[in-house]
Amino acid sequence: MDFQFYMPVKIISGRDCVLKNAKLFTSFGLRALIVTGKSSAKNGALSDVENALGESGCAYKIYDRIPPNPTVPSVREGAKLAREFGADFVVAIGGGSPMDAAKAIAMLARQEDGGDIFSYKSTGEVLPLVHIPTTAGTGSEVTPYAILTNDEKQTKTSISAPAFFPRVAFLDGKYMRGLGQETTAYTALDAMSHAMEGMLSVRAGALSDVLAKESLRLLKGELGALCAGVYTDEDRDVLLYAATLAGIVIANTGTCAVHSMGYSLTYFHGAPHGRANGLLLPEFLAVCAKRLPDRTREILRAAGFASCSDFAAAIAPLLGERERICDETLSAYAEKASVNKNIKNCQVFFDKDDLFRVLKRSVGRG
Amino acid sequence: MDFQFYMPVKIISGRDCVLKNAKLFTSFGLRALIVTGKSSAKNGALSDVENALGESGCAYKIYDRIPPNPTVPSVREGAKLAREFGADFVVAIGGGSPMDAAKAIAMLARQEDGGDIFSYKSTGEVLPLVHIPTTAGTGSEVTPYAILTNDEKQTKTSISAPAFFPRVAFLDGKYMRGLGQETTAYTALDAMSHAMEGMLSVRAGALSDVLAKESLRLLKGELGALCAGVYTDEDRDVLLYAATLAGIVIANTGTCAVHSMGYSLTYFHGAPHGRANGLLLPEFLAVCAKRLPDRTREILRAAGFASCSDFAAAIAPLLGERERICDETLSAYAEKASVNKNIKNCQVFFDKDDLFRVLKRSVGRG
Repeated sequence: MDFQFYMPVKIISGRDCVLKNAKLFTSFGLRALIVTGKSSAKNGALSDVENALGESGCAYKIYDRIPPNPTVPSVREGAKLAREFGADFVVAIGGGSPMDAAKAIAMLARQEDGGDIFSYKSTGEVLPLVHIPTTAGTGSEVTPYAILTNDEKQTKTSISAPAFFPRVAFLDGKYMRGLGQETTAYTALDAMSHAMEGMLSVRAGALSDVLAKESLRLLKGELGALCAGVYTDEDRDVLLYAATLAGIVIANTGTCAVHSMGYSLTYFHGAPHGRANGLLLPEFLAVCAKRLPDRTREILRAAGFASCSDFAAAIAPLLGERERICDETLSAYAEKASVNKNIKNCQVFFDKDDLFRVLKRSVGRG
Repeated sequence: MDFQFYMPVKIISGRDCVLKNAKLFTSFGLRALIVTGKSSAKNGALSDVENALGESGCAYKIYDRIPPNPTVPSVREGAKLAREFGADFVVAIGGGSPMDAAKAIAMLARQEDGGDIFSYKSTGEVLPLVHIPTTAGTGSEVTPYAILTNDEKQTKTSISAPAFFPRVAFLDGKYMRGLGQETTAYTALDAMSHAMEGMLSVRAGALSDVLAKESLRLLKGELGALCAGVYTDEDRDVLLYAATLAGIVIANTGTCAVHSMGYSLTYFHGAPHGRANGLLLPEFLAVCAKRLPDRTREILRAAGFASCSDFAAAIAPLLGERERICDETLSAYAEKASVNKNIKNCQVFFDKDDLFRVLKRSVGRG
């Protein structure tokens, strides 16, 4: 019964929860910086937040220039705006990119980054964060992680700090109504990857396992909708909740080799993060099944699959045609993944050869 | 998917977790007040805490005069000691009584109670709390509740404040090795009651349900050990974890009519809190089964029972001979319970007559 568990975010879930809890914003101050992406803002969430802030007497400024896979310059620009505006707190609206960027903005609004944001130490002060996910995947609303594009190292790098846990996460599936099929499917695969990798983490424990299994059970129930690309509001609510559960899991366990490998597919091939994880997950599990058969069976059973190939076949329709990448390039990605800190976080050790094989079996012939 | 969830306690679980995390204490200051009961201290927890505090360079004072069902005078005495000693934080060791009392002590060490501790408003400052449960029932280590004996109203009254969430809860089943059979069994019934009442609360939600069901599943698995009164270390670990899960549930849902009625059995008849809940739980469920059949079936199924009577029969051996109480007295208890705030917290409304009937069927003829 060895485990640690910490997840201090207040989760408020339900239809119109932002509007119904407008007063809550004022507990963090009277001036808000809203951080969002160009498209994240278009789903009704931004107008709900504007109405809620207006109603509760908060002034606000909108920073909506967060690109997908957020860059350090965009974060610095947001932080500058937060300082100039004198923001008391940050409201993040969107998928993983705005939500992660908002954390870094909240940090740089209070601290100097000394030129290297990735060497940030986690004890400093951060503006309070309120997170509103509009995709069901990243789980950023309940994690202490901010993942930014690291151009110097040509990858994505995670910064982690207890202060990055948002104070409040509002979950309302209605914001996903206009979400495209690809984003919906890929983010669901991201959530699935979080739940599975979390169960294979060296930090997996009884409590994170319960939540991971529940997330996998719910995601399996949504697989029909995901493959059909047709969603009811209830589907969206369940997907969002399952993604948050998986987020609580990785907040406590971290991720494993899938994420280590996936970053290259995203950085060099533009594969959306969830797609990258979905491509790699079945072959990653196949290696785990050989070296840690009982645990892998437990994961597959929780997810409702009889075997790794059963699982691979079930999610294949969500992935379509695969990126074609040559062996030499894959070998370089395996090398890069092998030094990623997540590798040590897995109950199964993946060396460079393992990583290469998983990558090779997961993508198309280059 | 309407729910709120908040549980900011860092849970550290595992054998010798107090000693292994000695340094953590210093993050709350260098002077600790240890709050415990006369017997709670005798199970190895106190010496572990003394060693951990000593090793990390913390000075400490021990206040071990918390009686079962903690009184307001004992809390005031503890707070006085905390102030005189200049305590930076409070370490609570024990069952529900020391853990709840420690919260009130931590509050009064920082705030004046103005003569009526029960009218305390929840926004004030409280010394940081570190909780170490040595029984598996109350869940106080993960709740914002402190339940104290209220002599003026002749009952037990709950004070609730977000600041009452401990900063850290250490879970180590080894501290239960010397626990008597009655305490072990009664506290397990308390945990079971928390999980079941939590699922019948108007605030029950998807996330609290998952945890409640897992708690019930684990408790069912321990029923054999509980009835035999023979425990392995693994049994103790599981009981403790299940009780903490149920505590997380009620932190988010509150309790219902069982607790409302149980307080009288404790206040006037000295029935230990968990015993009181265990006596009342099956008949409470039987009423719920009539008025909310689907939900009650879901609870019973999660707990591994086919029916209310199956459940009643399964826990009867843990309760032995019942308190004999006459109708007139039970009627007064029903009256008292009917104005308890927990009554409104239940999905099934229990009026005075319902409460009387449940009480009457749960105790012996007076």
